[in-house]
Amino acid sequence: MFDAIIRNGRLVTAAEILPSGLDLGIKGEKIAYIGIPLPDTEGTLIIDAEGAYVTPGGIDSHVHIDQGNHPTADKWEHATRSAIAGGNTTVLAFSQQKRSETSLYTSLGQYHAKATGKSHCDYGFHLILTNPTEQILTKELPAFVEQEGITSVKLYMTYDPLKLNDGELLDVMMTTRGLGITTMVHAENHDMVSMIIKRLEAKGHGNPYYHSVARPQLVENEATYRIISLAELTDTPILIVHMSSETAVKHVHEAQTRLFPVHAETCPHYLFLRSDSLAKPDFEGAKYVCSPPLRHQQTELDAMWRAITNGTFTTFSSDHCPDKYDHPCGKKKGLNAEGKSDFKLIPNGLPGIETRLPLLFDESGEEPHHKLTLSRFVQLTSTNPAKLYGLADRKGSLSPGLDADIVIWYPPGHAFTQDSNQLTIRNSMLHHHCDYTPFEGFTVSNWPRKVLLRGKVVWDRDNGGILTQQGYGQFLKRGRSSIVTGRPGLVPQGMLSDEASLWRDA
Amino acid sequence: MFDAIIRNGRLVTAAEILPSGLDLGIKGEKIAYIGIPLPDTEGTLIIDAEGAYVTPGGIDSHVHIDQGNHPTADKWEHATRSAIAGGNTTVLAFSQQKRSETSLYTSLGQYHAKATGKSHCDYGFHLILTNPTEQILTKELPAFVEQEGITSVKLYMTYDPLKLNDGELLDVMMTTRGLGITTMVHAENHDMVSMIIKRLEAKGHGNPYYHSVARPQLVENEATYRIISLAELTDTPILIVHMSSETAVKHVHEAQTRLFPVHAETCPHYLFLRSDSLAKPDFEGAKYVCSPPLRHQQTELDAMWRAITNGTFTTFSSDHCPDKYDHPCGKKKGLNAEGKSDFKLIPNGLPGIETRLPLLFDESGEEPHHKLTLSRFVQLTSTNPAKLYGLADRKGSLSPGLDADIVIWYPPGHAFTQDSNQLTIRNSMLHHHCDYTPFEGFTVSNWPRKVLLRGKVVWDRDNGGILTQQGYGQFLKRGRSSIVTGRPGLVPQGMLSDEASLWRDA
Amino acid sequence: MFDAIIRNGRLVTAAEILPSGLDLGIKGEKIAYIGIPLPDTEGTLIIDAEGAYVTPGGIDSHVHIDQGNHPTADKWEHATRSAIAGGNTTVLAFSQQKRSETSLYTSLGQYHAKATGKSHCDYGFHLILTNPTEQILTKELPAFVEQEGITSVKLYMTYDPLKLNDGELLDVMMTTRGLGITTMVHAENHDMVSMIIKRLEAKGHGNPYYHSVARPQLVENEATYRIISLAELTDTPILIVHMSSETAVKHVHEAQTRLFPVHAETCPHYLFLRSDSLAKPDFEGAKYVCSPPLRHQQTELDAMWRAITNGTFTTFSSDHCPDKYDHPCGKKKGLNAEGKSDFKLIPNGLPGIETRLPLLFDESGEEPHHKLTLSRFVQLTSTNPAKLYGLADRKGSLSPGLDADIVIWYPPGHAFTQDSNQLTIRNSMLHHHCDYTPFEGFTVSNWPRKVLLRGKVVWDRDNGGILTQQGYGQFLKRGRSSIVTGRPGLVPQGMLSDEASLWRDA
Amino acid sequence: MFDAIIRNGRLVTAAEILPSGLDLGIKGEKIAYIGIPLPDTEGTLIIDAEGAYVTPGGIDSHVHIDQGNHPTADKWEHATRSAIAGGNTTVLAFSQQKRSETSLYTSLGQYHAKATGKSHCDYGFHLILTNPTEQILTKELPAFVEQEGITSVKLYMTYDPLKLNDGELLDVMMTTRGLGITTMVHAENHDMVSMIIKRLEAKGHGNPYYHSVARPQLVENEATYRIISLAELTDTPILIVHMSSETAVKHVHEAQTRLFPVHAETCPHYLFLRSDSLAKPDFEGAKYVCSPPLRHQQTELDAMWRAITNGTFTTFSSDHCPDKYDHPCGKKKGLNAEGKSDFKLIPNGLPGIETRLPLLFDESGEEPHHKLTLSRFVQLTSTNPAKLYGLADRKGSLSPGLDADIVIWYPPGHAFTQDSNQLTIRNSMLHHHCDYTPFEGFTVSNWPRKVLLRGKVVWDRDNGGILTQQGYGQFLKRGRSSIVTGRPGLVPQGMLSDEASLWRDA
Repeated sequence: MFDAIIRNGRLVTAAEILPSGLDLGIKGEKIAYIGIPLPDTEGTLIIDAEGAYVTPGGIDSHVHIDQGNHPTADKWEHATRSAIAGGNTTVLAFSQQKRSETSLYTSLGQYHAKATGKSHCDYGFHLILTNPTEQILTKELPAFVEQEGITSVKLYMTYDPLKLNDGELLDVMMTTRGLGITTMVHAENHDMVSMIIKRLEAKGHGNPYYHSVARPQLVENEATYRIISLAELTDTPILIVHMSSETAVKHVHEAQTRLFPVHAETCPHYLFLRSDSLAKPDFEGAKYVCSPPLRHQQTELDAMWRAITNGTFTTFSSDHCPDKYDHPCGKKKGLNAEGKSDFKLIPNGLPGIETRLPLLFDESGEEPHHKLTLSRFVQLTSTNPAKLYGLADRKGSLSPGLDADIVIWYPPGHAFTQDSNQLTIRNSMLHHHCDYTPFEGFTVSNWPRKVLLRGKVVWDRDNGGILTQQGYGQFLKRGRSSIVTGRPGLVPQGMLSDEASLWRDA
Repeated sequence: MFDAIIRNGRLVTAAEILPSGLDLGIKGEKIAYIGIPLPDTEGTLIIDAEGAYVTPGGIDSHVHIDQGNHPTADKWEHATRSAIAGGNTTVLAFSQQKRSETSLYTSLGQYHAKATGKSHCDYGFHLILTNPTEQILTKELPAFVEQEGITSVKLYMTYDPLKLNDGELLDVMMTTRGLGITTMVHAENHDMVSMIIKRLEAKGHGNPYYHSVARPQLVENEATYRIISLAELTDTPILIVHMSSETAVKHVHEAQTRLFPVHAETCPHYLFLRSDSLAKPDFEGAKYVCSPPLRHQQTELDAMWRAITNGTFTTFSSDHCPDKYDHPCGKKKGLNAEGKSDFKLIPNGLPGIETRLPLLFDESGEEPHHKLTLSRFVQLTSTNPAKLYGLADRKGSLSPGLDADIVIWYPPGHAFTQDSNQLTIRNSMLHHHCDYTPFEGFTVSNWPRKVLLRGKVVWDRDNGGILTQQGYGQFLKRGRSSIVTGRPGLVPQGMLSDEASLWRDA
Repeated sequence: MFDAIIRNGRLVTAAEILPSGLDLGIKGEKIAYIGIPLPDTEGTLIIDAEGAYVTPGGIDSHVHIDQGNHPTADKWEHATRSAIAGGNTTVLAFSQQKRSETSLYTSLGQYHAKATGKSHCDYGFHLILTNPTEQILTKELPAFVEQEGITSVKLYMTYDPLKLNDGELLDVMMTTRGLGITTMVHAENHDMVSMIIKRLEAKGHGNPYYHSVARPQLVENEATYRIISLAELTDTPILIVHMSSETAVKHVHEAQTRLFPVHAETCPHYLFLRSDSLAKPDFEGAKYVCSPPLRHQQTELDAMWRAITNGTFTTFSSDHCPDKYDHPCGKKKGLNAEGKSDFKLIPNGLPGIETRLPLLFDESGEEPHHKLTLSRFVQLTSTNPAKLYGLADRKGSLSPGLDADIVIWYPPGHAFTQDSNQLTIRNSMLHHHCDYTPFEGFTVSNWPRKVLLRGKVVWDRDNGGILTQQGYGQFLKRGRSSIVTGRPGLVPQGMLSDEASLWRDA
Repeated sequence: MFDAIIRNGRLVTAAEILPSGLDLGIKGEKIAYIGIPLPDTEGTLIIDAEGAYVTPGGIDSHVHIDQGNHPTADKWEHATRSAIAGGNTTVLAFSQQKRSETSLYTSLGQYHAKATGKSHCDYGFHLILTNPTEQILTKELPAFVEQEGITSVKLYMTYDPLKLNDGELLDVMMTTRGLGITTMVHAENHDMVSMIIKRLEAKGHGNPYYHSVARPQLVENEATYRIISLAELTDTPILIVHMSSETAVKHVHEAQTRLFPVHAETCPHYLFLRSDSLAKPDFEGAKYVCSPPLRHQQTELDAMWRAITNGTFTTFSSDHCPDKYDHPCGKKKGLNAEGKSDFKLIPNGLPGIETRLPLLFDESGEEPHHKLTLSRFVQLTSTNPAKLYGLADRKGSLSPGLDADIVIWYPPGHAFTQDSNQLTIRNSMLHHHCDYTPFEGFTVSNWPRKVLLRGKVVWDRDNGGILTQQGYGQFLKRGRSSIVTGRPGLVPQGMLSDEASLWRDA
């Protein structure tokens, strides 16, 4: 009657851990039931989860795959095989508009072409808007929502080729609010960074470490406060990506507390790595160049952990953005022939798609020393991204009726690496195409043992590893976001309740 | 194969609304199955939920039933039939120690006697400690946890016969923290209230309205800050009951944000009623006397709604505490023979066990105008109380393996009251033994249509109403709390990390 | 021995009210002593202050006089006679760089020419920077400080012809911080305003009232937070001018509390007027167009009063910026031939140089109902501006050794307007050249009776009114600011203590 | 014409530093003149202040002299000679009611007797209320204000023999608010401390260091929040004495920001000493036992410095409370015959009357590295206490008409200790009767060179030291407080504007 049954696991939802001893039955690509063990039927694949935790497939909602100026590392086949080996069944990557392009279809066509037939996991696209023309705002975005199932955009407040000014940010938001498009923002003050870089340069400071000096937390704090202000003015829900600063997160939390729908995301490197890595000798620091930069002190990382636990962060993504280290078009773009480094030429970004889930899972559990519960782990890594990005009708939960995207972990205490129940992360074991991992040498206490995507086992760590063919992954047409923290429609301080209606449309 | 199947409903969990079209199968007293429709088996009761929302049975975790000084209204049979008619399958009532009693077994025996064989729903007890002797703290409380399945206490900071001083509160918390007992606190500053009452009395102010003047928000704010301080010193998770003041809630929220585990509860009357009710003429105001009192302004109620939505409140209970209005031992204790009223003699408390869920459900849903989501409704009214009070292994979720405690609502738009899809609340329709409801004349847009307790339909609004016999409800032996917001073990500001270990036990 | 003695007054300093019965002796242009009455000398002018309060001459540190695009109202002789009639002995006006000018000397020469020989009171200039060239920053500003005694600049975050972007703001601040130049900032987010104006325009909303809709508090809140961030990054003390929003003021207060030196200014219209004035019919609302706009509600004005009292504001200035109402180049620029109004063409600004002190004095005193003390009045209107703008060695205090700039008020209860001790403000009684006052019809309980500038009586309300000739007022070469709230040199959150030194100069 | 002239000094007021070159003339006991140098008159004593700073005489408004349970160190002659040698001209000491006493006159008579004829400086008394009978509140306190010139009380929230409960605190405040009596509060939660002490004792922890463990910041934070709440309820201005915790100070600052008049005081030991001193071996730690205790970390001291600078603290006093160290009735009460220490028996308190001003002066000045300005120094140490305690008509300012209480410091850079311009503090140089100073070995850069009290030089460090006779100091009849931060009469959150009038008198 069922094609497969996962038996004997401890099913984890965003709300609770279900009682032991339940079966999860799969029919076709879907979860068909959860309940007491049903009699076996011939032909049903029985997967014994051995008392291990079973979670919904990870959704990595912020990954860069084969984007223009990161040519050296992962293509779609690499990034997505790495994804599933790390417990992910869905990724959301970017389609980046070039400033010179006046239609988003141009870039989207190219990104579709790169992905089609190559992906090991299901996928979708966010649209990076760098030139929000009237045509795009009034014609294309509605069409993307209705026809393409692309319901999210990303806006940059920094980087010369990507940056929108406040007026453009406002214009885009006045559009996305009406269409129900999820609006992601990279929040760093561009001019602050430029000023510091110019002055560091004048003083001859080029080592990778200065990257962290060039983007202090003030840069993020200011831009975060500003984008929340712009969002309140236009009454637009937003997501601020890859947050790393306590004060910036406090601004988000305050907005959430008064029910204005600001969402926040953080990434593994802001929880586990510090700026001392950027000071590694021999240009090794270049491996850790990302923006916002790694922060200096443990207290700053602690603040991010608090926001993981207290609910401020809605999602936890990898911001996977790999460049080869030892490649002249990779990280070594920042090192000239004379061996002199120039941090501002180093491509920004870290690989991390495969390590995201094991790193966070390591701190998740039911004991007092765990930083977060397993349900919170599921929220951050799967359920919330599904809701936020319009996938909740198919993904993000161990729920009958949804896609059978499932991660089975090793049972607690299992000696899953030969003779130890600790695993040391080595780049050699990872499936991306990058020549390093920033988490080299970290130990974790678990790893996805089996991963199912739409009912099919695509990763079996003990038996064959990657089991899919390229192209099994499907492009996902997404709906509108179904998550809002608080409610939009609040009247900002000092405005009259009907004031905005004088210029905002309903 | 299943004893009953609920078909065609929209199952709501604390995390999400499951896809349409799923069956919920029941076997014996338990939920056995959630999934795609199974072929009927003969003898299976098919309950068609008609596209309506299906939620876990309500847990009303704060009700007073037949307590000593409230002799006029509900006995156990009344309160619990009212409970199930309002969608509740479990109630947690109080066993109140008298100051003169040196063992908790004295009172508990009496309260068990009152409930045994009378309850329509499952139930448990919280222990009100008014005289925390050494014997009780060191011998009895551990025994209650281990043998009686009673794992929560309630402490009062006000009321002469109940009040503990700071030293006693600390002593109890130093015990409960170790045992994992959930510690509930009524937080109002006693001396502030006494001072105001004495002065109001001197000025001859006796009308019920002055009750609200006698207990301004400062009274609650101060006690809330104090009990959080005492809890931090002793590193004890607490729940502050029936909160009504914005500043007090802010103190809770701040503690939660830095991960100290303070929980908060509010009640329907703090969301829906204001102090103008206390000013009703002809002593009608007495019907609205409760502590903390109803607050004056809508902005104050709005702040409670925000805390409902933004996650600050963990639970939402009725604080059902009924006294007959027109009875000399009820509310009219506050009115003497000459018709002169003395607000301080009016018994404190409001009935509300039956109206709690419909009132909150009315504001719950997936549309922008709804104040909270249905999942948040389920968290506040069922899942969170189950976790907080050690019932999560049996109650609080539509999860296979748990008790089949289920509420089926009317489908949206259903004309469930003759020819209208709005219902006007009248005391005559309620099942308690009280002669009034403070929500008389309120309209709601839904009501529990069917309620199942351990697999059995105990309430069918359209076919017979109350279907159980007294005594179907069972006493619940509870385990330890499984919910903590944040993590205990934090070091308060200014303390060294190992400082507390000099005097606290691990 | 002394040229004049003020006898019998109650001398008010920024710290206290001196005991009754003291003499204040003047010799030449200076205050020579304060003390017990000395024997008269022949030829000494005895001024009997009759038990009235005596305060230092007002310093109006923010006035616009005869600036380019406000051609219709006050020239220097008008504004400054209005100043002294309102109790001011010093004004600081603006010299505005045009975008096309690459040297500040161009505009300064013109502004000097306008003022020379015309002023009734002492005066100085702030430099408005609209095009901060390398030459200006590195050569001219140091020269202004050293040679011209001009030690303050003003920067705009809004208005197309004036606005600097973040990079320019940073560059200027990196210069002013080193030179000790006081940096004033008009903080409103330009793009927010532009977006709203564009949309109001599209909907045909042109009445003056829409000016207040176009610049909601969010506009000020955002820019305030941003400029504080930029100031912290560069470690530059700043003054934010004409503040009107509670949240913006809160940002200032928070910075001050952690000792970062942010100063704030407010103006009479943000304490006394509301946006309903902008809604007056028949284009009368145009008289109230200024930026930031008048706010909507009394609670918002109350917040400004709190900041007056609790010390957040450093200075209180008029922002005198008069345009004639009934003049095609004045306010009526916003009204076309067809009688259609376009609020964005209305010149921004209100007259107020003469009413500033009486309006604030009205709320100052030693009784509980007074909003501020007389010492706080003196701080805000005289002592603090003197310190902030490098005048403390000559102005701002009733201190021996300083200029004898003195205001003698009427004694409390004096019937100073025929037969009443209340005065109704009428434009006809004012000395400016504007055809209206926004405070028409306001009543005040006192007015400067006599004003002395450098020892000479320049205003005697009861005997001749204005007694000076144009040109008595001198240009003031100013030194560096001698006031700092808190201390610069703080390390912003998340920065290492020596991090900024990698790119900032000492 | 003048009896004395101080020439050539730099006079410092609470608002500014007056220009150089001014004379301060004295006639009889009063300051008669500040101004340009006058011709000498024969018989006028010319005191050349040599370019040094001249400040008003210090007012130490919180000192314990010869109180009951501190019998071993200073009598009035000792403490007050120490006071003037440290730059103080006025002290306010305590008259302590015993619990058994039903009239305050009993204790006051005894304290008067101790002081009369013994004091080197002017003095007054605060009344410690430990048993606030009806008679005292309704009859005696009004009489003290009207007849005795005693206008301040002190209330304790801790210590068994002194502690008032909340009800008593409220009753006292309802009286003092009406009379305009300044209400000082020692804010620590008694029961928290008792609970910790009991548990430390049970574990055998008796060393002095445990005193700091027994009174963590939470103890102060809670009591501070509570007393502010009680004060708001009764609308009573209060002063919280000897504050030491950042969170507690934050509560004060928040109240001040919304204009509720809460004042705060801190003391030298909370700025300069840490709890490591309590850990000194051989019972030396006992020298540092005071309550609140010294705090652990420099960041905590930094927070107190911030509150010194940002204006939160109104006064800075010594809390001089000396006990001999090497005396069985002094600190060694905490050491039994077997050499076992019991921290709870150690008398609480530190000597500090003589070192208060030099320690703070050391951090005061006009350079960026100075933590506070000289005007702020004068505010904290003299002007504010004079205003707060009803002495402003005689003391606290270099103002003509006030008592000529004056401190002349050494000129900057003066080699005032043989051949160095640094002075190392040694107990041997101090004038109290205590056998130690907690500041032994600290260096300071200045010291009062000459001190004048009512026109007479009472301390000349270079010529004779103490020049007064015992008994020159006078008892001061004080008026009502003339300082309020903010305004009473605010409506606390959630109360209606006329609500309190139902039970509070006007």
